[in-house]
Amino acid sequence: MSKKYFTAGPAELYPKFSEFLQEFVDKQLGSISHRSGDFKKIYQHTDEQLRILLGIPEENAIMFTGSASEIWEKSIQSLVEFESFHLVNGSFSEKYYQYALALQKTAKAFKKPLGEGFTYSEIEVPEYAEMVCITQNETSTGVQMREADIHKLKRSNAHKLFSIDIVSSAPIPTLDFKLMDSVFFSVQKNFGMPAGLGVWIANEKCLEKAVSLKEKGLSIGAHHDLPTLWKNAKNYQNPSTPNVMGIFLLGKIAEDMNKTGIDTIRKTNASNAKKIYQHFENKEGYEIFVKDPDLRSKTVAVINTSSPSSHLIQKLKAENMIIGSGYGPGKDNQIRIANFISTSTEDIEALLEKI
Amino acid sequence: MSKKYFTAGPAELYPKFSEFLQEFVDKQLGSISHRSGDFKKIYQHTDEQLRILLGIPEENAIMFTGSASEIWEKSIQSLVEFESFHLVNGSFSEKYYQYALALQKTAKAFKKPLGEGFTYSEIEVPEYAEMVCITQNETSTGVQMREADIHKLKRSNAHKLFSIDIVSSAPIPTLDFKLMDSVFFSVQKNFGMPAGLGVWIANEKCLEKAVSLKEKGLSIGAHHDLPTLWKNAKNYQNPSTPNVMGIFLLGKIAEDMNKTGIDTIRKTNASNAKKIYQHFENKEGYEIFVKDPDLRSKTVAVINTSSPSSHLIQKLKAENMIIGSGYGPGKDNQIRIANFISTSTEDIEALLEKI
Repeated sequence: MSKKYFTAGPAELYPKFSEFLQEFVDKQLGSISHRSGDFKKIYQHTDEQLRILLGIPEENAIMFTGSASEIWEKSIQSLVEFESFHLVNGSFSEKYYQYALALQKTAKAFKKPLGEGFTYSEIEVPEYAEMVCITQNETSTGVQMREADIHKLKRSNAHKLFSIDIVSSAPIPTLDFKLMDSVFFSVQKNFGMPAGLGVWIANEKCLEKAVSLKEKGLSIGAHHDLPTLWKNAKNYQNPSTPNVMGIFLLGKIAEDMNKTGIDTIRKTNASNAKKIYQHFENKEGYEIFVKDPDLRSKTVAVINTSSPSSHLIQKLKAENMIIGSGYGPGKDNQIRIANFISTSTEDIEALLEKI
Repeated sequence: MSKKYFTAGPAELYPKFSEFLQEFVDKQLGSISHRSGDFKKIYQHTDEQLRILLGIPEENAIMFTGSASEIWEKSIQSLVEFESFHLVNGSFSEKYYQYALALQKTAKAFKKPLGEGFTYSEIEVPEYAEMVCITQNETSTGVQMREADIHKLKRSNAHKLFSIDIVSSAPIPTLDFKLMDSVFFSVQKNFGMPAGLGVWIANEKCLEKAVSLKEKGLSIGAHHDLPTLWKNAKNYQNPSTPNVMGIFLLGKIAEDMNKTGIDTIRKTNASNAKKIYQHFENKEGYEIFVKDPDLRSKTVAVINTSSPSSHLIQKLKAENMIIGSGYGPGKDNQIRIANFISTSTEDIEALLEKI
């Protein structure tokens, strides 16, 4: 009997994943040249469907890497000369910050304890920070930053670049791509695909910054630097041989999501998230980790358990329902439940019934 | 009717590719956590099968990236403080050299015209070069460097690191992995897989060098630096979420190759290569591009055509046989024929019959 995955990525695959994979195999797309017109058509299709799904302006480039972690590195290399600023409240925002330090930037962080998040009014962006790095959805703790707060922060720091990690929330956040400079995600979360592809969406301000760093004689890296990715993306190509299968599947899935409509998808997501949090609101033995309801992630719910979380995880596993443990310090006394698009309302209800 | 791909990558998929892919789908491996025991078993299996196939010593780490191009960057960042030395005779060896320049190393190159190659006695490694970078099989021109020459060069420069690009030849070359420090390849060539995975094999000397650069306070990058990849690989993991499907398929294909036996595979490869070159030896309207028979690639044959190569390419396409054009300046008057493992002797014979 097949399992249902409620894990925060890799996650349950998209319902039509097998169908789209079969099309990839039948058309022998694993063998086509990544310089051919056939490949460019695939890239263009994925590009167009993502623009519709996320509301990405024509100006921006949509570029592909091996993972979103790679984009942590590439965005710092291409977009920061001296100083970056990071909102850190969990393992993944911490990693983005650590990447900047490893690249020997003056990286500054506003840190919050695990389970807490950030609101507009409390954030002071350092004067010399060139880029503000925000993990919109902190997968490790189930904390989100509200889109409105991100937008306000950008508006009041309009001359700084903003780089937004929506790895485990895209395409749910209603992010204003006209306002955001660099946004990235990976495909093994809400898009219900096997891992191995990162997606980077950047605007012309990013390109200008990267070019200016290069002109100053600074190294912005050699592989997948922004100007090279950009130039290729505008021609529906990639500088190195990309994950063609991933790009193809992402286009098919985004197209399928567009058929449903992003508004409907977001409504279902919000309603399922509400169901999950309500279930644990007053349930004995459980406690919602994130206290502020406004900062609770819509896609990854983290719940404290009074008994060891492994008990529940094992019990559900026997029912072919796979949920995650907490991350890092929360490993033994937390569960994480993903509320991704591939998981239906019925799946969520069936899971909650067993808890 | 299905096509036969004789292109130099992406290429014809491995005969059992669909079967292995179906196993991946049936077992829901696209959903498993990359921190789980199930994933570690997949990584370990692939690691073990590659060690058998290529004769990789236990000491070495086998690490995964998004592509082999990424390893050009990571190997320079982690293994070179000041100076690298490159043998350059085509587009891909040139790119490795350009990556070193983009990373602001003192990169020196011994360059040869397209279609020519390198032998041991003519190579003088600069005194201060810390790493010698060799493209064993130059995919753009169909020129190989003989394994014996690489081994001799390393023996007479034992204190320098050697980094060998076998992207489009692995697992055919009989490289001595006890002698070589850094070796890498990608999977969309001889392994007959869709693109999206790079494989990096490095020894402890590489690890020591990378650690020493870090201890000196130098940046060796943030994503997929060698010490982080190494530490994870020794525990059958990857620092970021890797291409789990690619790692699984590579293990299954390497295992299948081991059932045939690498000696048999290499013999078949050599015999098919001979057939291809003999076919064009005295054929009117065609000329083998690489003059020195010892330097002719066993996996990518480049042939000059007296009439525009597109004529032949189109004619064969109508027969569902896909061959490549020349690369760069050879685009209009060369063809490239891949002699990869997924292409049988019968396929090669059928192709040659049509030319």
